[in-house]
Amino acid sequence: MDSEYRIILNVGGVRHETYKHTLKKIPATRLSRLTTNLANYDPVLNEYFFDRHPGVFAQILNYYRTGKLHYPLDVCGPLFEEELKYWGLDSNECEPCCWMTLSGTRDTQDVLKTLDELDIEVDQTEGPILLYLCRFRSD
Amino acid sequence: MDSEYRIILNVGGVRHETYKHTLKKIPATRLSRLTTNLANYDPVLNEYFFDRHPGVFAQILNYYRTGKLHYPLDVCGPLFEEELKYWGLDSNECEPCCWMTLSGTRDTQDVLKTLDELDIEVDQTEGPILLYLCRFRSD
Amino acid sequence: MDSEYRIILNVGGVRHETYKHTLKKIPATRLSRLTTNLANYDPVLNEYFFDRHPGVFAQILNYYRTGKLHYPLDVCGPLFEEELKYWGLDSNECEPCCWMTLSGTRDTQDVLKTLDELDIEVDQTEGPILLYLCRFRSD
Amino acid sequence: MDSEYRIILNVGGVRHETYKHTLKKIPATRLSRLTTNLANYDPVLNEYFFDRHPGVFAQILNYYRTGKLHYPLDVCGPLFEEELKYWGLDSNECEPCCWMTLSGTRDTQDVLKTLDELDIEVDQTEGPILLYLCRFRSD
Repeated sequence: MDSEYRIILNVGGVRHETYKHTLKKIPATRLSRLTTNLANYDPVLNEYFFDRHPGVFAQILNYYRTGKLHYPLDVCGPLFEEELKYWGLDSNECEPCCWMTLSGTRDTQDVLKTLDELDIEVDQTEGPILLYLCRFRSD
Repeated sequence: MDSEYRIILNVGGVRHETYKHTLKKIPATRLSRLTTNLANYDPVLNEYFFDRHPGVFAQILNYYRTGKLHYPLDVCGPLFEEELKYWGLDSNECEPCCWMTLSGTRDTQDVLKTLDELDIEVDQTEGPILLYLCRFRSD
Repeated sequence: MDSEYRIILNVGGVRHETYKHTLKKIPATRLSRLTTNLANYDPVLNEYFFDRHPGVFAQILNYYRTGKLHYPLDVCGPLFEEELKYWGLDSNECEPCCWMTLSGTRDTQDVLKTLDELDIEVDQTEGPILLYLCRFRSD
Repeated sequence: MDSEYRIILNVGGVRHETYKHTLKKIPATRLSRLTTNLANYDPVLNEYFFDRHPGVFAQILNYYRTGKLHYPLDVCGPLFEEELKYWGLDSNECEPCCWMTLSGTRDTQDVLKTLDELDIEVDQTEGPILLYLCRFRSD
């Protein structure tokens, strides 16, 4: 039985389980450096707790399992990028099939940053039209 | 160990877990005002029960965790807006990257409200065509 | 404490929980007629088991909770329609915001049925092009 | 009570449950050949552990339950194809409603393979544009 080689990660209340060696596949990241000395380790339940998005974490852990980073399609790009950052992962490592998602995310972020630098105030009414114009004008 | 600072929210059967102080980040909302006197608090399991959509709640709680409100892409806008309303949250606070989703939702709702006021009956056969025409004519 | 009024539905391994009276909201459906005499009721765990899609069920139960039927966007229309049928629900009851999803599903099904009646064999290579042509020619 | 006919599959920490006979519906696959002699079987918990994506597995198991293979829409095609391969399933068996998703996946993979054979280096900046051009030129 292989349960002794496993690790439980309680992410926002949802238990994810993987092999300890799976987490070593991407070195120098939050998950590759877990030790039982951490404050978020619970010795009774033998699990680590993280106050993060439970659903998106399946996509994070899949990167360790398969060696391939894919963007999820049920949340928007910037939300996923914030999760990648928290887990110490690099969004540039994402697979070619997800480049369009990544590219769309970056375009939107660039436009919003430019508007911010030009000190142009936008709200939810005019925002979408402006974003639409900027993104297509830059093609 | 930090488990004493945590809180369990049983949303539609799925356990979500967060730090108590995370829920204080957005004041004057349903989640910031939880007390053990509430009828939905279970002292044996030490959890609060809510008869709501378990999946969408990950997106609600992510707003408390990150301070950023993002629309999910796996459910339609009006469903998410009803959840926001239940939890006492303001959809206008959503991030710029989700403005297009928010805007599409509002357009559709406006068109349907207008048709309703004009007492025009529509069903699933002609509805999609009408919605399509109205939304693009208003651009 | 309100836990005595609750019911646990084990759908494909994932526990969903709701109030008993929530399931009475849509009469003459599989969920409104549950009794402890059924073979899928487990008296030890006090839950009902259903061998169905656990994720999509959140959308089914949300219909009982809110009185509004919305299509999920993370699975394709025909998959959801099969779940609706199993639970004894009527896809025609879906909200106007989901009419386009419903309409797209029906169009595709009509085209495939016609091809089938004409005894035209299609596979995954030519299928998508044919579907595309048929759907746009019918506009 | 029918619990003796059931089987628990712990996929990445999330428990999925089905009837033993459901897994026999698609013969000669990983799930149809499970025996308690396997290293990933836990006799105490009476469950099988798999270090795979927990969410996508709902779509895999739904194929056994309904006899119909549908692509999920919350993850990209290549991720799902890798899961299908792990579980010993054939993506060509997917339902007509999912042909467009399958076709888009294959087109992208073909373009990337061609670029790779031509030894053309692409990154995330130029990649999306190149993919876009190639896919539409081939129509």
